[in-house]
Amino acid sequence: MRDAAVVLEGDAIAWVGSAADAPATDERVDVAGRAVLPGWVDSHTHLVFAGDRSAEFEARMAGAAYAAGGIGVTVAATRAASDAELAANLDRLADEALRGGTTALETKTGYGLTVADELRSARIAAGRADSVTFLGAHLVPAGAEADDYVDLVAGAMLEAVAPLVDAVDVFCERGAFDEPQSRRVLEAARARGLALRVHGNQLGPGPGVRLAVELGALSVDHVAFLDDDEVALLADSWQGGRGTVATVLPACDLSTRMPLAPARRLLDAGAVVAIATNCNPGTSYTTSMAFCVATAVLQMGLTIEEAVRAATLGGAVALDRDAPRTTAGGRALPPLGRIRPGARADLQVLDAPSIAHLAYRPGVPLVHAVWRAGEPVVGQRPIP
Amino acid sequence: MRDAAVVLEGDAIAWVGSAADAPATDERVDVAGRAVLPGWVDSHTHLVFAGDRSAEFEARMAGAAYAAGGIGVTVAATRAASDAELAANLDRLADEALRGGTTALETKTGYGLTVADELRSARIAAGRADSVTFLGAHLVPAGAEADDYVDLVAGAMLEAVAPLVDAVDVFCERGAFDEPQSRRVLEAARARGLALRVHGNQLGPGPGVRLAVELGALSVDHVAFLDDDEVALLADSWQGGRGTVATVLPACDLSTRMPLAPARRLLDAGAVVAIATNCNPGTSYTTSMAFCVATAVLQMGLTIEEAVRAATLGGAVALDRDAPRTTAGGRALPPLGRIRPGARADLQVLDAPSIAHLAYRPGVPLVHAVWRAGEPVVGQRPIP
Repeated sequence: MRDAAVVLEGDAIAWVGSAADAPATDERVDVAGRAVLPGWVDSHTHLVFAGDRSAEFEARMAGAAYAAGGIGVTVAATRAASDAELAANLDRLADEALRGGTTALETKTGYGLTVADELRSARIAAGRADSVTFLGAHLVPAGAEADDYVDLVAGAMLEAVAPLVDAVDVFCERGAFDEPQSRRVLEAARARGLALRVHGNQLGPGPGVRLAVELGALSVDHVAFLDDDEVALLADSWQGGRGTVATVLPACDLSTRMPLAPARRLLDAGAVVAIATNCNPGTSYTTSMAFCVATAVLQMGLTIEEAVRAATLGGAVALDRDAPRTTAGGRALPPLGRIRPGARADLQVLDAPSIAHLAYRPGVPLVHAVWRAGEPVVGQRPIP
Repeated sequence: MRDAAVVLEGDAIAWVGSAADAPATDERVDVAGRAVLPGWVDSHTHLVFAGDRSAEFEARMAGAAYAAGGIGVTVAATRAASDAELAANLDRLADEALRGGTTALETKTGYGLTVADELRSARIAAGRADSVTFLGAHLVPAGAEADDYVDLVAGAMLEAVAPLVDAVDVFCERGAFDEPQSRRVLEAARARGLALRVHGNQLGPGPGVRLAVELGALSVDHVAFLDDDEVALLADSWQGGRGTVATVLPACDLSTRMPLAPARRLLDAGAVVAIATNCNPGTSYTTSMAFCVATAVLQMGLTIEEAVRAATLGGAVALDRDAPRTTAGGRALPPLGRIRPGARADLQVLDAPSIAHLAYRPGVPLVHAVWRAGEPVVGQRPIP
């Protein structure tokens, strides 16, 4: 829309239409021809951690291959950190993301890997993210036997964290958890009524996508290595109801020097695609959804509209937040990822006349202003 | 260096060493463990223009191929703009670049293509860039015959702009100027004592690299399509004296969906490589050297140190500003692109503990503070 106006009321959008028809409001902000779009919905991050893996990153850039074992370095640092340190690090990154236009965040546990450490990770995340995912099945911790650890994750650990989380995720990949182990965790989660996610097909072909679709997971994330049957399976999962979102993580693909996920093929087949950062200290240490969107357009063959949709509404679908929901405690949650009446008032204003500039001007910080749940958040320049 | 200090005096660096040994100064700034590096030297931009080509960009992202003819759209808009509009647009982009850490800029004419329009472009650039390049040979303007236009460029147009510019450049590519035409312009420039540059081997194999090395050009830019002999020629040009810098333009390669230039092969062969933005409204509308550096590391196989060096000292070499120089008017110009005594005091401070974060955290704005010629420039956060 051109010459448009958006009316915010409380935490929600009350009205959208032509500026000429806008109802009277208490305050008005003229964005002077700048593009307005929904805030980014980053549906895949790992922000409860301590420490830094820049040395591992530098080694990878000098030719070392990525292996899942690097996660163990962050597990050790996270266990050694205080609650306050973990909370401050999450707040720092969530604030950075917000300044970059991200108004809704999912985040995961997964660097604790003991009942106590996963529980405190979930507690720290719960007050700070829009959606929390339990990822006890991130890596078999050093010294543990894999099947014993899966028993713990699907048993006592899941029981402890369940009241605090929205979903359960498994790193189903060579070097992490195989299909039977992943299935045990996911089925235990489903039995408790929790939503499911899978990290799948990141480092090579694998069972992650099939398992995610079979079990009705909200999303399967990474999806870099897909055969035609798996692409079709993801598309067909939407026949007759809610299916499984294919979440692509372009910054992670680049930061691990892996192939970019086939987002173009997925869209052409009719799959629902989300774009997320996968912000974590090992394989994708960025909060920049704009970088991911630019990469999706410049290198993955998406149009601007497709990429922006995947980074807003696509993320909302992956979080099951594209429609109104009510929490277990009875609190109403407005939907995310769209500018329309009833949606949460999450808006970003670009220092540019159109969303095309997100890819046309890669690397240039374009955020002019952000509103989250109706509250103005000053971006890199003051709101006029 | 760790625990280091830099002393600035006037527009230059006076001292560099261990903080424990630093001499007394009038003022001190504690950057609190943040990484300090030279400001970016962006040795290839086209900032004297008007208008926007986002529609062409969107069409390209939807599958249209890039062709040099799009330049004509910007030529028409530039001719129609006032001097004040052109100056304001250049200032806007130079300011954006400075906030992104770019403390030295080359820029080019080339959207005028008449004597009067090229002359005013050179005048507008002259007070605003560290180095100005005459690019009358950017495109044969609509309605002109190619050889007649080359006569004009190498004759009256060159004569008019020569007092205002440091170098002369030619777009030596299919669809623009062929080898004999390019040679005529470059030889006329050399006869006047001006430095030379070539846009070469961008859209396919071509004579640009050979011509640039033969004529002793400061740089040949784009260099996406190089055979082994051309790589060796660029490396060997440095045997026994100053050679020709290979300037790679990663954001342009991505924005035109062309292959990334073989910077790794060039460095392995011993060539001198610069990284620049090629900021222009058609093929690379970004001022972000940080984006280019991240791309060079993540996708072109450079180490962090190689990429940062190419984006600082590499640019300085391409501008012939790696050593002290004196203008025709007798003014001393300190060298650029390095932190050492005598160099221009151009520094950037990152919100990160090491330069690795430039690629480890792609898309995240990391500039904390910038000094240009000894003057503090506030970045995205105030200087502590």
